[in-house]
Amino acid sequence: MTGRKRNAVVGQSGGPTAVINNSLVGVIHEALQHDEIGRIYGMLRGIKGVLNEDLVDLCRESPETLGMLRDTPSSALGTVRYKVTDADYDRILEVLMAHDIEHFFYIGGNDSMDTAHKVHLLARQKGYELQVIGVPKTIDNDLAMTDHCPGYGSAARFVATAIRGSGWDTMAMGESSPIKLMEIMGRNAGWLTAATALAREIPEDPPQLIYVPERGVSLEKFVDDVRYWYGRLGYCVIAVSEGLRNEQGRPIGEASGTGEVDAFGHPRKAGAVEFLEGLVGESLGVKTRHDKPGYLQRSFTALVSPVDREEAYEVGRAAVRAVIAGETDKMVTLVRQAGPEYVVDMGLAPLAEVANAEHLLPPEYLNEEGNGVTEALLDYVRPLIGGPLPPYGRLAKHAVEKHVRPWPG
Amino acid sequence: MTGRKRNAVVGQSGGPTAVINNSLVGVIHEALQHDEIGRIYGMLRGIKGVLNEDLVDLCRESPETLGMLRDTPSSALGTVRYKVTDADYDRILEVLMAHDIEHFFYIGGNDSMDTAHKVHLLARQKGYELQVIGVPKTIDNDLAMTDHCPGYGSAARFVATAIRGSGWDTMAMGESSPIKLMEIMGRNAGWLTAATALAREIPEDPPQLIYVPERGVSLEKFVDDVRYWYGRLGYCVIAVSEGLRNEQGRPIGEASGTGEVDAFGHPRKAGAVEFLEGLVGESLGVKTRHDKPGYLQRSFTALVSPVDREEAYEVGRAAVRAVIAGETDKMVTLVRQAGPEYVVDMGLAPLAEVANAEHLLPPEYLNEEGNGVTEALLDYVRPLIGGPLPPYGRLAKHAVEKHVRPWPG
Repeated sequence: MTGRKRNAVVGQSGGPTAVINNSLVGVIHEALQHDEIGRIYGMLRGIKGVLNEDLVDLCRESPETLGMLRDTPSSALGTVRYKVTDADYDRILEVLMAHDIEHFFYIGGNDSMDTAHKVHLLARQKGYELQVIGVPKTIDNDLAMTDHCPGYGSAARFVATAIRGSGWDTMAMGESSPIKLMEIMGRNAGWLTAATALAREIPEDPPQLIYVPERGVSLEKFVDDVRYWYGRLGYCVIAVSEGLRNEQGRPIGEASGTGEVDAFGHPRKAGAVEFLEGLVGESLGVKTRHDKPGYLQRSFTALVSPVDREEAYEVGRAAVRAVIAGETDKMVTLVRQAGPEYVVDMGLAPLAEVANAEHLLPPEYLNEEGNGVTEALLDYVRPLIGGPLPPYGRLAKHAVEKHVRPWPG
Repeated sequence: MTGRKRNAVVGQSGGPTAVINNSLVGVIHEALQHDEIGRIYGMLRGIKGVLNEDLVDLCRESPETLGMLRDTPSSALGTVRYKVTDADYDRILEVLMAHDIEHFFYIGGNDSMDTAHKVHLLARQKGYELQVIGVPKTIDNDLAMTDHCPGYGSAARFVATAIRGSGWDTMAMGESSPIKLMEIMGRNAGWLTAATALAREIPEDPPQLIYVPERGVSLEKFVDDVRYWYGRLGYCVIAVSEGLRNEQGRPIGEASGTGEVDAFGHPRKAGAVEFLEGLVGESLGVKTRHDKPGYLQRSFTALVSPVDREEAYEVGRAAVRAVIAGETDKMVTLVRQAGPEYVVDMGLAPLAEVANAEHLLPPEYLNEEGNGVTEALLDYVRPLIGGPLPPYGRLAKHAVEKHVRPWPG
């Protein structure tokens, strides 16, 4: 440490989550505690804020605003999906140097960690003293080197709650509308879809079937699965990852190859859920419905996991402590301790090892049939949603003796 | 009163809501208070439970179960969409008489009130002493003779919360994905879609545009509206009723007449939101997204309106008090008192006047342009969601002075 104040910059990148602003506030709160850190700048719209030199002074934000941000969805600094080119990195360094920025915090997923890593490499090559720390964020839960990702627990709580209510609705509708599909976010990783299993209190509860991209799905098997549960319960609720693939590994829906076009003559982007809904409706001859909660999954701040909210805040704080400790080129990780209680410590992992990896559901979390999850997955995800979902009431339905002849209707 | 115990039956009909079980519990709790009432039977799956003589004894349910039902979505007795035929009414009366049922409570929308009214008429014609009371329920808020319908306030709170979070997500994404549409339930009535306006704290907040079935929409005007807001804010969020119609009164989407077929060769049922998403994406040349919260809107018990939850319970209790008072052929109504405070009394309206009416958004609740709502609508719906949505944090974003030349990128 030189005694000289070193400025910091923080940005948010990729898709927002319901708790990503907690990480931003964590960075700001912790940075304000350290005399070594001078100004705390925010980049507007992620790395584009650096490229455009669109920086804001976060030290001047009120404590009230920062407190409210902890329950505000979306990325407060704005976000971006932008592939940084090799030519951009010189520009990034130029802007950082012009503002005496020597701490670089980037909140995002694996693309963002790749950007952060490359910023680090260039700074080192140019001899510029820059400490780069990544802060993990993604509802997809697909980052390597960390037990889980801030943002996932809240999205998991939301989708489990959503499919539970919607599934019970289908249970009540019965023969009027017995098949319900719900499309859950996740193009390659099925972590979020798998978490819908938390909706069940008893094994027969919805969702009865869960399909994730890690397993290729046979359309015949899919229809048989639905037919089985429909026959057994009179209804069936199905969780489907948006990125579901068939047995050949091609996306379902797009893989249908029917040459359908939309009103503008462009190929229809029928998703997996629309395709499967049509398939099962046709095969069983019953009414089907689907929900697509879409962006609610990453923005429903009204129902977050308190555990996730707190961890999102703490990874932000840990990132600042890491630079104070002299670290660079690392991402903060969550390290789950062994034992019956859920305890998580903060760790660090090399950015390079996160940048080029995608952590998918391991086989032991998926059942053999490829239409559900295992107890091990439930044990993994249950603590992340911050406590069990509240129990639902179930009528005992004591039957009254019949007195008249059966209805011929 | 004869001193003789008269049995009661209660059923749930039509689409469930997040609070419909409160009305069931309200009926049971109140009925248990009155010695005049003997057994309280539940019909399984609405009127089909009477036709099939599938009755359950609700007096034998535990107080704990009834308490939990107040926070359980779906219709606990099961529900049905079944058009009762003239021949069925004799059967209904036969089953009611076989169980000495002289109080008939039916929780549902206007189809259900029609059924209840016809049961009343037949009983009177046959000289059977039956008291029939309807209990209002619908998220569509389209029942006549009542200020509003239990179920609507919770659905309104949910959709306002949903589009607010998803809309702020779009705000943060900006140019990466600037147009978001959300499909809100409502085939003929736009009450629920209109309630998304509660998501705004300031006039520029999402949703910037709101379209309801009561107004025919010109596709040209729609695109112009979106273009205006996209130009002004860099993004635009749009609430669209599922039953949106064009200027000729035909459903948008189905009205497109492109002859598209699905994978099975059947005509595509592209909804309004899918059609409009394609239209606006094509016209503006930007990425678009849509959410379809679907059945979450009527089942998300994790976020109900406390006002709505309580009113749903009270209309159930009021129905029982009505039969004790000797009433029949009536539906319980909510009567809003004039004055600055929100105060609601219970009233009664003739079933016949509810059965054949549909209460749509009046013109004074819609703006002249046909793309938004008025302050009068906000004043109407605000109290129903049980208090304002929590404020969100907004960074002041104090700009930092630029030191380097503009980025050519």
